[in-house]
Amino acid sequence: MSKKIYVVGIGPGGYEQMTIRAASVLEKCDIIVGYTVYVDLIAEHFPGKEMLTTPMRQEEKRCRMAFEEAGKDRQVAMICSGDAGVYGMAGLIYEIGMDYPDVAVEIISGVTAALSGGAVLGAPLMHDFAVISLSDLLTKWELIEKRLAAAAAADMVICLYNPSSKKRKDYLNRACRIIMRYASPDTVCGVVRSIGREGEKYQIMTLAELADYGADMFTTVFIGNSTTRIINGKMVTPRGYSHKQKTGQE
Amino acid sequence: MSKKIYVVGIGPGGYEQMTIRAASVLEKCDIIVGYTVYVDLIAEHFPGKEMLTTPMRQEEKRCRMAFEEAGKDRQVAMICSGDAGVYGMAGLIYEIGMDYPDVAVEIISGVTAALSGGAVLGAPLMHDFAVISLSDLLTKWELIEKRLAAAAAADMVICLYNPSSKKRKDYLNRACRIIMRYASPDTVCGVVRSIGREGEKYQIMTLAELADYGADMFTTVFIGNSTTRIINGKMVTPRGYSHKQKTGQE
Repeated sequence: MSKKIYVVGIGPGGYEQMTIRAASVLEKCDIIVGYTVYVDLIAEHFPGKEMLTTPMRQEEKRCRMAFEEAGKDRQVAMICSGDAGVYGMAGLIYEIGMDYPDVAVEIISGVTAALSGGAVLGAPLMHDFAVISLSDLLTKWELIEKRLAAAAAADMVICLYNPSSKKRKDYLNRACRIIMRYASPDTVCGVVRSIGREGEKYQIMTLAELADYGADMFTTVFIGNSTTRIINGKMVTPRGYSHKQKTGQE
Repeated sequence: MSKKIYVVGIGPGGYEQMTIRAASVLEKCDIIVGYTVYVDLIAEHFPGKEMLTTPMRQEEKRCRMAFEEAGKDRQVAMICSGDAGVYGMAGLIYEIGMDYPDVAVEIISGVTAALSGGAVLGAPLMHDFAVISLSDLLTKWELIEKRLAAAAAADMVICLYNPSSKKRKDYLNRACRIIMRYASPDTVCGVVRSIGREGEKYQIMTLAELADYGADMFTTVFIGNSTTRIINGKMVTPRGYSHKQKTGQE
C-alpha cells in the first residue's frame, strides 16, 4: 500500500457542511490527526476511528506525527477547519513533506469561513474580494496594514479571519480605522460567530459600528464594498446584473 | 408549507465535491433550476428529479423562474457551480426576491474554484489573497486594473476567475503585465482547467510565462506572492511556521 496523507478541510464544523469526498476519506482512513477542537467536532460521526490530537500552536509537531503514522503504511487524514488550503495545514504539510519523500500528499478542499459565513449573512462576496488574517503571529502588522489599505482603496469586499484574540483586542478597531481612510463609515459590514456550530449568530452593522465591535477568535468579519447594501436584513453585494438590465446591455 | 428557494453551490462539478448538506437539499427539493451545463453535471445523481434549465446570460430569467416555482408551494433549488455566493446567483436571488416577499431564501455554500483549484495545485492560498474576476461584462476594466494593481502591490496571492473568453483573448496578458509592475516575472503561478471534472489538468509556470498562456473560460488562474515556491512539483505559499521555528518564536 502506498504511504499517504490526506489533508482534509472539514468545513465550518457541522458534519453536513463537509464534502461527500471529505467524509468518505475520513471513513476509509486508518487514523485522523488534528487540533483537539476540530477532532471533537467530528469524532461522533466516525465512531471507533483512531484519533490523534495536539493542542493549538503545535502545528509542526502535528504534521510530523501525521508523517510518522503514514510511514507505518497507514492511511492518515490530517483535518483542518474550513478549507485545508486557507490558513490551514496544507502548506506546512508540503514543507515538512520534504523530509518524508516516500509519503504522498493529497489535499481535500472544504468550505472556508468566507463562504460559510457569507452564506449566513446573505451574499457579501458576490464581487471581487480579499481575504486577510489579522493575526500578526506569522505576519508583520505593517504588511497586514498595507493589505487592508490596498483592498479598501480598490473598493474590494474584505473578509477578515482571526479578527481578535486575547493579546490583540484592538486589532479589529485598528483595521477598521485604516479601511475608513478609503471607505465610508456607513459601509455595510457583517460578523458571524460559530458558523455552522451550536450558537451560530450573525449581525449586520456599519463600518463605524464594527470598529467598536467586540469580536473574538470565533468571529469572521465581512466589510462590504461601496455598493454593498442590506436587502431584507441580509448583506448583499450586487454583481451588476440589475444595472445591466436597466441599461439594456447583454 | 413555506415557500422557499435554496441557492446551492455544487462545488467544481463532481458529485463527491458537493457538501453533504447540498446533496440532501437537492434530494429533498421538488425542482432543480440552473444553467444547462451545471444541471447536466449533477442530473445523473438525482434521477427522476424535475429540472429546469436556461442558457448562460439569462440569469434574471432563471431567478424569476425559480421564484415562480416557489410561489406554487414547491421547494426549489437553484444551483450554481462552486459557491453560490462567489460570482454565483445568491446576490441576484436576494435582489429579485424583493419582488417575491413571501418566498424565503437560504444559501447553501459550496467549494469555490479558488479552493478546489488550489487543492489541485498544492497550497497556493495559505496566506492573504484576493479573488478577482477578469470579466468586464459587469465591471469596468479600469476598476479591474485598479484591483489587480492593489493586490499585487500589497504582495497578496491573486486568484483570477474568468481569465479569458472569445471576446477577451488578451485580458490575462493585460492582467499579468499590470501585476509585473509590482511582482517579479519569476513569481510562481499556476493554472487549473476543468477542476474536478473529466480532463482536469494543471500546470505551474512563471508569471512571465502566464502572460502568454492561452487560458480559456474553464481555467482558474493563481498568481503567487513573493514567497510562493515550488515544492515537489506543487505550488506552495508558506504561512511562516518554518521561519518562526527557526527564529525560536512561538
